[in-house]
Amino acid sequence: MTPFERDITDQPAALERLLAAERAHPPLPLLHGGEKIVVTGMGSSLYAGYPTWRRLLAAGADAWWISASELLDNPTLAQRAHLAIVTSQSGRSGEVLALLDQWDKAGPRHVIGVTDDPDSPLARRSHLVRPLHSGPEATVSTKSYLNTLAAHALLAGELTGDPLGPVISEIRLAAAELARALRARHPSAVIAAAATGAGSPRLALLGGGDQAATALTGALILKEAAKVPAEAFVGGAFRHGPIELAGPGLTAVMLTGPGSGRDSLAHLAADLAPTGTTLVTIGPHTLPGVFHHIPTPQAGRPADLILPMLAIQRLAVALARATGVEPGHFHIGQKVTQTL
Amino acid sequence: MTPFERDITDQPAALERLLAAERAHPPLPLLHGGEKIVVTGMGSSLYAGYPTWRRLLAAGADAWWISASELLDNPTLAQRAHLAIVTSQSGRSGEVLALLDQWDKAGPRHVIGVTDDPDSPLARRSHLVRPLHSGPEATVSTKSYLNTLAAHALLAGELTGDPLGPVISEIRLAAAELARALRARHPSAVIAAAATGAGSPRLALLGGGDQAATALTGALILKEAAKVPAEAFVGGAFRHGPIELAGPGLTAVMLTGPGSGRDSLAHLAADLAPTGTTLVTIGPHTLPGVFHHIPTPQAGRPADLILPMLAIQRLAVALARATGVEPGHFHIGQKVTQTL
Repeated sequence: MTPFERDITDQPAALERLLAAERAHPPLPLLHGGEKIVVTGMGSSLYAGYPTWRRLLAAGADAWWISASELLDNPTLAQRAHLAIVTSQSGRSGEVLALLDQWDKAGPRHVIGVTDDPDSPLARRSHLVRPLHSGPEATVSTKSYLNTLAAHALLAGELTGDPLGPVISEIRLAAAELARALRARHPSAVIAAAATGAGSPRLALLGGGDQAATALTGALILKEAAKVPAEAFVGGAFRHGPIELAGPGLTAVMLTGPGSGRDSLAHLAADLAPTGTTLVTIGPHTLPGVFHHIPTPQAGRPADLILPMLAIQRLAVALARATGVEPGHFHIGQKVTQTL
Repeated sequence: MTPFERDITDQPAALERLLAAERAHPPLPLLHGGEKIVVTGMGSSLYAGYPTWRRLLAAGADAWWISASELLDNPTLAQRAHLAIVTSQSGRSGEVLALLDQWDKAGPRHVIGVTDDPDSPLARRSHLVRPLHSGPEATVSTKSYLNTLAAHALLAGELTGDPLGPVISEIRLAAAELARALRARHPSAVIAAAATGAGSPRLALLGGGDQAATALTGALILKEAAKVPAEAFVGGAFRHGPIELAGPGLTAVMLTGPGSGRDSLAHLAADLAPTGTTLVTIGPHTLPGVFHHIPTPQAGRPADLILPMLAIQRLAVALARATGVEPGHFHIGQKVTQTL
């Protein structure tokens, strides 16, 4: 078992650690609606904030979801913000530190840092810290991503005044379901064989609503852990041009979780099936014409984001094996990206 | 010459048509700063709005840049907007029409429609229309994208109260430079040969600041016109994981125009060169270790966005030829995406 696979196996325990520490937090301020908020980070730390952004918007906040590097480049956005939610597993990624420096002069009134390291520069320089409790992680983001989803679900609930009991139950359910799924057989080797059957594999991950986060993080970890070109398309973006990639060699992974636009995905599956594209669905529903469906229970937030990710992690492991790569081993990058 | 290549050749004339019609517009309202604005569209029509969004932010507006499908999904964003800038070459893309229906009940106070078709539903349902004058286009967006960049530069200048003389001069300069560049020899076949030399090509387009628009549209048209996996990475995103794609087979196209983060690109070039990645720079500057540099003049807005795109269009033609595909021919999609 590679270090990447050990981290995948440790995910249920990492979620339990987060829950065990949940009572220890100082309370967050409740939003009154209309506040300007920026939700930021880089890579999967940014993507985990996508559902939080949507939830804040729905609660009436004037919320922005934007990468730390684009925020650095457009400082007026944060200057007038009431609140910034800054996520970084290490608490020391280059863009986040540069942003905190910029905010020393003019920045948001409150900064909430979401990080695994309570001694990191992000934690030291935030007004409030939400620790991830994901623990040491070998390479590609696995348990840190799932714990970030869980921490964000709690944080968004607290800010918007929703009761936290159901969220805590969902995280507990997700941990139990993950542990169960880890013991079960899974079809990733079959999918990887189909994906690589026509030569060089290429993947498209398609998700709408909150599942955009799964598509974005899924495409990122497939690139990192298996070195395959995998791109995420949010909402209707795939149909506006990228559909031309369809045909033998393309594997389209459709995320069918709640709010993901079931009708749109069904139309897309009907258009893609005759092209020779390998269609995979992950979620509570499947669609006609798919090569393989990986079911996940119809859960609630954040379980409906946590459970599909395990299927993608396993697909990354299988694709790496099928193409002769050590799953999750970094060839070029580092775990913590400090260079701008 | 394919229809796609004929459209590429017609681009200088299309920009001249836009300029010739410029005096005919009713004036736009001047912004006072602080207004909430949404800039939206799908595909390259969305990407052309990225520099407009940055310019509105810099002018003090509370501006949002977001795809029409994500905006449909998060209606509170537009409900409170003072102004929406909606771009669609056809004026009838599925998401845009659905958005206009949604706004019949609650939407922005003013809608500016940017479209090539003055009889389209978008034009008919907007408060103000800015016609593109790009004319009939065979397949993949070429002249409609360049004219959208030019129309947006004029529109953003008018909204923020900047003098339009310099923008008009820049568009005229860009048209002349495009015509000159179209007559000159170009290195796209050499780059395409290098890109396909190690087997299945994969491309990463890297741009910061306004050049994010070039990276995003460039990756889209490479997928559409050459059926190759090409992904855009904005700002520092490439280093946070996707850098693992580096090595033989990857062609990294770095856009070195103004504000694109020259130091970051130089660090990245130094890290990528030893991996066997084929490095290409497009813009006023090059970097050590590149395989090929395609110079474009240090211009101003919007010329610095128009001129690099021609280089990418030609690379798309050459990559299509190198992989046995008819450049710009749609296999699956249609010119106008009406299905949601």
